[in-house]
Amino acid sequence: MTQLKKARAGVITEQMKITARAENIRPEDLRDLIKKGQVVLLSNRLRWENHKGLPQKVICGVGKRLRTKVNANIGTSTDYCNIQNEVNKLKIACGAGADTVMDLSSAGNISHIRRILLSKSPVAFGTVPIYEASLHHLSGAKNKEHIHRSILKLTAEDIFKTIENHCRDGVDFITVHCGVTRDVVSILNTDGRVGGMVSRGGTIMAEWMKMHQRENPLYEHFDRLLEIAREYDVVLSLGDGLRPGAICDAFDRVQIAELMVLAELARRARKADVQVIIEGPGHVPLNQIQAQVQLEKTLCDEAPFYVLGPLVLDSAPGYDHITSAIGAAVAGWAGADFICYVTPSEHLGLPTAEDVREGVIAARIAAQAADVAKGNPASLSHNKTFSEYRRQCDWEKQIKLAIDPEKAKHYRKRRKTKSRTACSMCGEICVYNIVRSREFGVGPYGRTPNSKLRTNLYDYTHRRSSVGR
Amino acid sequence: MTQLKKARAGVITEQMKITARAENIRPEDLRDLIKKGQVVLLSNRLRWENHKGLPQKVICGVGKRLRTKVNANIGTSTDYCNIQNEVNKLKIACGAGADTVMDLSSAGNISHIRRILLSKSPVAFGTVPIYEASLHHLSGAKNKEHIHRSILKLTAEDIFKTIENHCRDGVDFITVHCGVTRDVVSILNTDGRVGGMVSRGGTIMAEWMKMHQRENPLYEHFDRLLEIAREYDVVLSLGDGLRPGAICDAFDRVQIAELMVLAELARRARKADVQVIIEGPGHVPLNQIQAQVQLEKTLCDEAPFYVLGPLVLDSAPGYDHITSAIGAAVAGWAGADFICYVTPSEHLGLPTAEDVREGVIAARIAAQAADVAKGNPASLSHNKTFSEYRRQCDWEKQIKLAIDPEKAKHYRKRRKTKSRTACSMCGEICVYNIVRSREFGVGPYGRTPNSKLRTNLYDYTHRRSSVGR
Repeated sequence: MTQLKKARAGVITEQMKITARAENIRPEDLRDLIKKGQVVLLSNRLRWENHKGLPQKVICGVGKRLRTKVNANIGTSTDYCNIQNEVNKLKIACGAGADTVMDLSSAGNISHIRRILLSKSPVAFGTVPIYEASLHHLSGAKNKEHIHRSILKLTAEDIFKTIENHCRDGVDFITVHCGVTRDVVSILNTDGRVGGMVSRGGTIMAEWMKMHQRENPLYEHFDRLLEIAREYDVVLSLGDGLRPGAICDAFDRVQIAELMVLAELARRARKADVQVIIEGPGHVPLNQIQAQVQLEKTLCDEAPFYVLGPLVLDSAPGYDHITSAIGAAVAGWAGADFICYVTPSEHLGLPTAEDVREGVIAARIAAQAADVAKGNPASLSHNKTFSEYRRQCDWEKQIKLAIDPEKAKHYRKRRKTKSRTACSMCGEICVYNIVRSREFGVGPYGRTPNSKLRTNLYDYTHRRSSVGR
Repeated sequence: MTQLKKARAGVITEQMKITARAENIRPEDLRDLIKKGQVVLLSNRLRWENHKGLPQKVICGVGKRLRTKVNANIGTSTDYCNIQNEVNKLKIACGAGADTVMDLSSAGNISHIRRILLSKSPVAFGTVPIYEASLHHLSGAKNKEHIHRSILKLTAEDIFKTIENHCRDGVDFITVHCGVTRDVVSILNTDGRVGGMVSRGGTIMAEWMKMHQRENPLYEHFDRLLEIAREYDVVLSLGDGLRPGAICDAFDRVQIAELMVLAELARRARKADVQVIIEGPGHVPLNQIQAQVQLEKTLCDEAPFYVLGPLVLDSAPGYDHITSAIGAAVAGWAGADFICYVTPSEHLGLPTAEDVREGVIAARIAAQAADVAKGNPASLSHNKTFSEYRRQCDWEKQIKLAIDPEKAKHYRKRRKTKSRTACSMCGEICVYNIVRSREFGVGPYGRTPNSKLRTNLYDYTHRRSSVGR
């Protein structure tokens, strides 16, 4: 029985209890959100049963009223295929605070890499099975012709078997490009696009469909997919093969046609007690993000929305963790539930471990900015406490509470100050110094009679009655 | 005569012509926007007259219908007081694309530093005269008591004389904290704040008012300030001494009380033919940014809005170029005209040259994201062209068009690929490779009869009829 089916039966599972505690929400409320399909729990049944000792954060709740989550993509490519590097990225990503990790390996022994990473992952774990399905015929060959031959050799049966293997291994969620149908692709052909089709899985799927002159098997045999997902309680992340890869392609007929298919499939999945999330964005101009989220939420009955970026510019390679943090913050505020990080090396190369770190932190900043905007009490309180430490010039506590203590420490240390309390930007004319010096009696007025009594007309910067606005 | 007065007289000045050309707007339209006070030209009369050979971008138009502008703050602090470093930062900031630079030096021979920087600046140049006015009594002393003594010694006359010196030197715009009045400060005292008062100039002003038990001379003798500004056609940037320094302080009574004063002063300035912009934000939660901009625009008759950040989180030291890029993009989209950058070392130390670079690029990303969202034709076309190069895997042209070619080049080079066209993220399974290989006849179907004839039903990723959506 899936978490969705149990919720429907009124049961509050162990996973629900753990998630409710982590999110500071009543277990009954969480159950009801799961029942409506507005929250999913990423938690493969087998992985859960076989790993009783797993840390609690291995279960990840995604959806309405929960903290906005961040995913980090790792995995090999034909150019950088070293399993140790990927294990290291997994560690770095989780250390930097990623809520989930997806293995997007597209080279090497993909099954082996997945199993190693999954066994070491302290967080919920996702994959895109089509990569392995289409590429395992390659076995080392690395040119275009081989890739096409590999896609040509691929059968629908291969795809489903690979998916089942992933689920049996314990993967918590999988991206499946079910919405890349013949009809959707024909719109792409009619209308054209500046950026074309930029989803790797989607492109492989479309190539397959073209070569075989057949419908997408993940769409055609969606019920078979549902059976597998239900068996292992794997969350289906309905992939956006037609996401815009250039801002001028966003909200075009192709994108919306695919989203309409995903909406239909999401309904079918829920009917079959299968948990489902919808994938979206890519490159989207800032003014369109709210509408993008609203449309998904309405069309898909508030299914959790998993967005890549969105990147608000095409033209900033080297800084796409920033272009996407801008978009992700706005998307999260508008209701997106799950943010897929983008690293600084996006569009330029496979990320290094340091890129992974930068990407996770940028996405976490976006997620927390969204949570603050949505009034999440924990996020508001975190920032308030932080600012109190800042005013007290308590550097130790600030650094401890910072989103990335290591980086904060590094920056502070690198540019030393002679001041006991300030930083080197203002040094002795730090505003908190100027005021503090008087408050604590070392200013020109000498010691104040009672530093706790602050009733002076001009004794600004103190007190605050309202809490956590 | 100021640009504003000339606009009112129906004159289209040389500066207006240059700006109109740069912004791709009709000179008559620009003149009318200046007339209404919705656009200002940062261009000190003396600097302009004395430097006929200056590059055109030394004039910076700020306001409605113009490209969103980016300012970089540089300058010494008591801990890092080296003029060569600041000259280097000026060069780095302008090289990275800053539209203006402000010298915020608060240590050393401030007049000398300003004159050196101003003489070398290829862009519009701003200052905050109160630093020099209040700190020149210090002459090297560097403890709190000295700072307070220095503020105590400061006279209103000193402040005005320093301002006049800055204007005579050719400074194009100055921040003046005219809105930190007794009434406004008394609200701060009544209500309190988590972050207190975080503006350096504002705090100095408030300390002065407290020590001398007098009204803010910049408010009390605002007409004298207007006379000076008019004489040199220096734009007054009405400083936000009470900007929120913690997100939970945003939109409090204190902030709005000061904005109301600035609105009143902006009207008086325009009546006196003095160009004026309003300073705003600081730390503001994402959900409040649009309202912040709308309020300023309405209260201040659409005076250009100059925002610091806004930073959408308090708790991300080391990443405040990102927290502020998120806020700045949304603010710019909502109508903010001028973005003051924030560097990664904000709240932690005086920025290095590398921090300055990172800060400028992050702010430029925000500004361009805002311009795209506002439908600026040049920005839309830039991104479209960029994406066309991306689809063509034309790396040379992509890097040339990138917001930071150097960084893009570095990332691409660092993670080499064996592929002739792709990057190392996907290598041979680059979506553009998979499709291209067929298009150019090297795929499994062999050479297509005519690669320019693309009428195949599944020939996706090509063509686009609609322009620059």
